Amino acid sequence: MASTEKVSPRDRLLDAAARLSYRDGVSVGIEALCRAAGVSKRSMYQLFDSKDAMLAASLEQRVPRFEAQLAHPDPESATPRERILYVFERLTAAAADADYHGCPYLAVLVELKDPEHPASTVARGAKEGMAARFRAEAAKGGARDPELLARQLLLIFDGASARAGAGVERLEDGLVTTTVNLLLDAAGMA
Amino acid sequence: MASTEKVSPRDRLLDAAARLSYRDGVSVGIEALCRAAGVSKRSMYQLFDSKDAMLAASLEQRVPRFEAQLAHPDPESATPRERILYVFERLTAAAADADYHGCPYLAVLVELKDPEHPASTVARGAKEGMAARFRAEAAKGGARDPELLARQLLLIFDGASARAGAGVERLEDGLVTTTVNLLLDAAGMA
Repeated sequence: MASTEKVSPRDRLLDAAARLSYRDGVSVGIEALCRAAGVSKRSMYQLFDSKDAMLAASLEQRVPRFEAQLAHPDPESATPRERILYVFERLTAAAADADYHGCPYLAVLVELKDPEHPASTVARGAKEGMAARFRAEAAKGGARDPELLARQLLLIFDGASARAGAGVERLEDGLVTTTVNLLLDAAGMA
Repeated sequence: MASTEKVSPRDRLLDAAARLSYRDGVSVGIEALCRAAGVSKRSMYQLFDSKDAMLAASLEQRVPRFEAQLAHPDPESATPRERILYVFERLTAAAADADYHGCPYLAVLVELKDPEHPASTVARGAKEGMAARFRAEAAKGGARDPELLARQLLLIFDGASARAGAGVERLEDGLVTTTVNLLLDAAGMA
């Protein structure tokens, strides 16, 4: 359509890398990525130093969207407990999707098994961002040990997302919010 | 050594498939597997229909060892609570190993993203075996809702093993047993 702005080859590659690596795994081939993006391999290597660099950039680009999806829509009026629970309500909703394959950042770390890979660095950053937000909410909500509570919440988030993504758990009955409420109560959260 | 029994090509392939797929991921190449096993590709295809079938068989073969590692050494004298906690003590010890990459069965499911793959079927069976044992212990220990408790324990097990394997969590300070004790208490376990 003449009125829409053209998507650049770089953005098409980043989108293809994020979509296909999430659906098929990080071992998805360069040919498949270039074909999906409608970009030649030659052009790809002019834009990115390597497939690894492209994968890392594609994950990095999606971090703001990932964080926005888990952020309470009315953060000012919500309590810290409500803002934490919202993350798990969103997880429960996302996991019901047939195309759900778990947290993309944890999946990349599990698949790559290489802490030095540039995509692993991005993924660790995304998970550390989650930990920092949980710690901040836990502190605001008066948790006795915000650091401990944040780590427990991430055990639940990553356990639930990995298990639901792997097809060995279903979250619709509220498993995750039930368990999180229990942890919030035990931590003395308001 | 003349006195040791010779390991068959089949067993060498199964061992290589289990070791290398755990270390490097399920996309490890057939060449690398055959080289590590000291078996020709031709021989491999006489023994297994496909790499997928070999991977599934290698995971299946290790299930009894996986289960034995998590089984309390003195099950008769231990209480159900102690037998559950033992699983998480073993997880904590295993996760301290530099070569730890998480639960091999969850990792295979996360990596393959294909419920129809023969290795996914084996992996789901191993995870369902864990769920069944947790449910049985929860029932014996008087948990109000053994099914719920078993599912919560698996969120912790898989969340902790995936996060420790991915290098974004460390378990040595007792994070997992602290959290599991909290869940056992909340469930009314003796």
